[in-house]
Amino acid sequence: MTYAYDEQIDGPLVTHDKVTIVHELQALLPRLQLLHEAEDLRPFECDGLSAYRITPMLVALPSSVDEVQALLKYANTRGVAVVARGAGTGLSGGALPLEKGILLVMSRFNRILEIDPEASIGRVQPGVRNLAISQAAAPHGLYYAPDPSSQIACSIGGNVAENAGGVHCLKYGLTVHNILRVEIITIEGERITLGSEAPDSPGFDLLALFTGSEGLLGVVTEVTVKLLTKPQSTKVLLASFDNVEEAGNAVARIIAEGVIPGGLEMMDNLAIRAAEDFIHAGYPIDAEALLLCEVDGAESDVNEDCERVEILLRAAGATDIRLAANEAERQRFWAGRKNAFPAVGRISPDYYCMDGSIPRRELAKVLRGIADLSSQYQLRVANVFHAGDGNMHPLILFDANTPGETERAEAIGARILELCVEVGGSITGEHGVGREKINQMCAQFSSGELMFFHSVKAAFDPSGLLNPGKNVPTLHRCAEFGSMHIHHGVLSHPELERF
Amino acid sequence: MTYAYDEQIDGPLVTHDKVTIVHELQALLPRLQLLHEAEDLRPFECDGLSAYRITPMLVALPSSVDEVQALLKYANTRGVAVVARGAGTGLSGGALPLEKGILLVMSRFNRILEIDPEASIGRVQPGVRNLAISQAAAPHGLYYAPDPSSQIACSIGGNVAENAGGVHCLKYGLTVHNILRVEIITIEGERITLGSEAPDSPGFDLLALFTGSEGLLGVVTEVTVKLLTKPQSTKVLLASFDNVEEAGNAVARIIAEGVIPGGLEMMDNLAIRAAEDFIHAGYPIDAEALLLCEVDGAESDVNEDCERVEILLRAAGATDIRLAANEAERQRFWAGRKNAFPAVGRISPDYYCMDGSIPRRELAKVLRGIADLSSQYQLRVANVFHAGDGNMHPLILFDANTPGETERAEAIGARILELCVEVGGSITGEHGVGREKINQMCAQFSSGELMFFHSVKAAFDPSGLLNPGKNVPTLHRCAEFGSMHIHHGVLSHPELERF
Repeated sequence: MTYAYDEQIDGPLVTHDKVTIVHELQALLPRLQLLHEAEDLRPFECDGLSAYRITPMLVALPSSVDEVQALLKYANTRGVAVVARGAGTGLSGGALPLEKGILLVMSRFNRILEIDPEASIGRVQPGVRNLAISQAAAPHGLYYAPDPSSQIACSIGGNVAENAGGVHCLKYGLTVHNILRVEIITIEGERITLGSEAPDSPGFDLLALFTGSEGLLGVVTEVTVKLLTKPQSTKVLLASFDNVEEAGNAVARIIAEGVIPGGLEMMDNLAIRAAEDFIHAGYPIDAEALLLCEVDGAESDVNEDCERVEILLRAAGATDIRLAANEAERQRFWAGRKNAFPAVGRISPDYYCMDGSIPRRELAKVLRGIADLSSQYQLRVANVFHAGDGNMHPLILFDANTPGETERAEAIGARILELCVEVGGSITGEHGVGREKINQMCAQFSSGELMFFHSVKAAFDPSGLLNPGKNVPTLHRCAEFGSMHIHHGVLSHPELERF
Repeated sequence: MTYAYDEQIDGPLVTHDKVTIVHELQALLPRLQLLHEAEDLRPFECDGLSAYRITPMLVALPSSVDEVQALLKYANTRGVAVVARGAGTGLSGGALPLEKGILLVMSRFNRILEIDPEASIGRVQPGVRNLAISQAAAPHGLYYAPDPSSQIACSIGGNVAENAGGVHCLKYGLTVHNILRVEIITIEGERITLGSEAPDSPGFDLLALFTGSEGLLGVVTEVTVKLLTKPQSTKVLLASFDNVEEAGNAVARIIAEGVIPGGLEMMDNLAIRAAEDFIHAGYPIDAEALLLCEVDGAESDVNEDCERVEILLRAAGATDIRLAANEAERQRFWAGRKNAFPAVGRISPDYYCMDGSIPRRELAKVLRGIADLSSQYQLRVANVFHAGDGNMHPLILFDANTPGETERAEAIGARILELCVEVGGSITGEHGVGREKINQMCAQFSSGELMFFHSVKAAFDPSGLLNPGKNVPTLHRCAEFGSMHIHHGVLSHPELERF
């Protein structure tokens, strides 16, 4: 699935040779912070989406804001593209390097600058790991809510770039709802603060615009996060169902009743069996679907909510409901879910993890559609969801060594995402667009909407040097991909030359 | 306080005379939808900020998306500025007309297009009143959460433009957190959709960027809102304090404990006495401060939370705590708070309502600062807050007929907002910038940040025809106002000519 990156369409060509650039950058950075030999570059050739691999021209490891400013000013002056990278755990190739670009690795920005328990905020550098923030806040009874599955490794800078979610985002929101302020460096090397500790900032909401912009608008050098008080009590219910529709309806009923669970996850039979075989979580292997519903809050509230959820689950057709008896069993229930991806990896030579989102009410319809596609393409699909907020992760099982299966896997993946768009959903839930879904963006958006994205991009980065080829496709690419919605003959628009 | 609007600085000059424009617009709109005689224009000369009054050149009342598109295309071609107006209840002059501009009154867009109880969403036209949405959703047990005090009159389109809040936004968020999608018409007349029903939209978050942009980026023609399930139970506690600091600390303790009240409001003695005198809410007139804390949710959760809040209030020094005995008393407690502004209007010939926000931990410090300013300027200030999220509404009491008092009121108001900025807060909490706070924006933001605002504005509206002179000040204005932060000598920046 390696992609021949076409810089002539998607990104600017560098006008200077590598030797010159390395030489010039050596004046800006200490020797050990600049990697340019082939063997040093290898570890950076992909992020969590390992299907795409490109060796960067060189890797810079700045350790101060001054160095980031100097690097970006240099890149801007020389017209060299820059890709910023956090921990490299992203699943959509957002940190995929450029053959002729600088990879700006932010791992040295790893300090927690401040935990202020009184204000319930933390101020951290972008290379700090997501989980490390909660660990630093724990002595004060506080934690940082968004918890992507990769939270042990992923960095907060990457979380901001991707607007990361997690199993608790139904109740506690995405990254954008849990940060107050970021400091960024623009491609011109200017240091700018977006957002504030105030609930509503005047002017345009540039913090929300920046969050999830996947490195296209600037490089984050500091993040101020909200910290929440740890809930007194947390309980998990595991419910079994004879069919996925009933499980889907149960989700809708719980939400409609006004209960906002801390997490509300769904797995289908193939995912259940794979996870049980791997983790021995105690899952019901004959169930067609299971729901995990976590309730958190004050002790007595949690007991009450658990009772309400149990009644709703039973009314929706649950055949069996189990409350985790203790913390160990609760952890085991979650371990099965959190390891569903590697578990599926054990029963198939290869799998392709999809990430789409749909309106909750379309859950049953989309599941039927996926089952039909599975028969049509003769590939098994295991379904794992953040059901509460309609974020689906179908896992397509295939064998790359069987001729044609890789192509069929890619094709069914694309069809599933188109199905998400058809029912009013979106081609990404929480993994971002990155390099992986750049073509699907042409299906999601009209050329009019894409033009706005390009205008906003141009407002921050007029030369298009920051992470070109990710997140927002050029109109040319969409025309080639064949999914361009032509509005008012915009493809002959004079501005097109710029995009 | 009438302001001589300087279009040569803030807005484009119209290049055609009124007679020509009226004549040309008559071809686009039915006769009754175009007002241009002085007596017809009078009702539109101000919004809720009545201190500023300007008679618009003409008023257009479109009744279809086609008409909005035609009007904006016309304005764009002719270079005529356009101000969109909802119900005109805004408190910062965001809908203040232009002497040489078209006022686009959206009141005919008053239809609720769809209430979908299964998906918990509503699709409405922008002229629909905020409260009307909840009324339409009520038969399904649903409601629309943001509830500005003007909710009986204000329109959802205006709520989007201002990112309106209300007493419940601490728990349920601002407008931006409660809408899923808007349809907008650009100044070029293009119809664009921002956002989706999916939890996280790919690409840049243009919905968040647009929300609160005060009419500078486009005109809203449709809004899709989230509807929430009505809580089973709602209770209110009223707590009295001997000093405002203790009341401020109580707020911090409640939040730190992990309780998120539906509403958490604070009033000082002057506001208490004025409200009690007017509404007879049963307020303790000798208390230096009172807190109203509303808890909502499932019946037993609410009882439990009430007990926890009561313990916290007592620990924080509350001298008296009363639980509203029934729904009638609950409504009375709220009526006092919601009528605090008119109540203050009864004890002073004039008052000036301020709107600023601060980090919660700075509450006591800012209150002391306001008390000092009150002595210094010899004007009484009554304080009413959305305490839970640090949104303050100091009411400055003055008499416009006493020479010098109006100027003193304006001066102390500006000083209070500067104090908010000094402690890390912001010059507006929920009323927006509009025309009123355009100068204070120069204190809030550096020229670097303002340049980004202008770049984003230019991406949507390159000629600056949409609501010029509101929300984002020109750099020239800031230079004249004297609060310009000079960064890298940006005032000699060549791009300055455009702004």
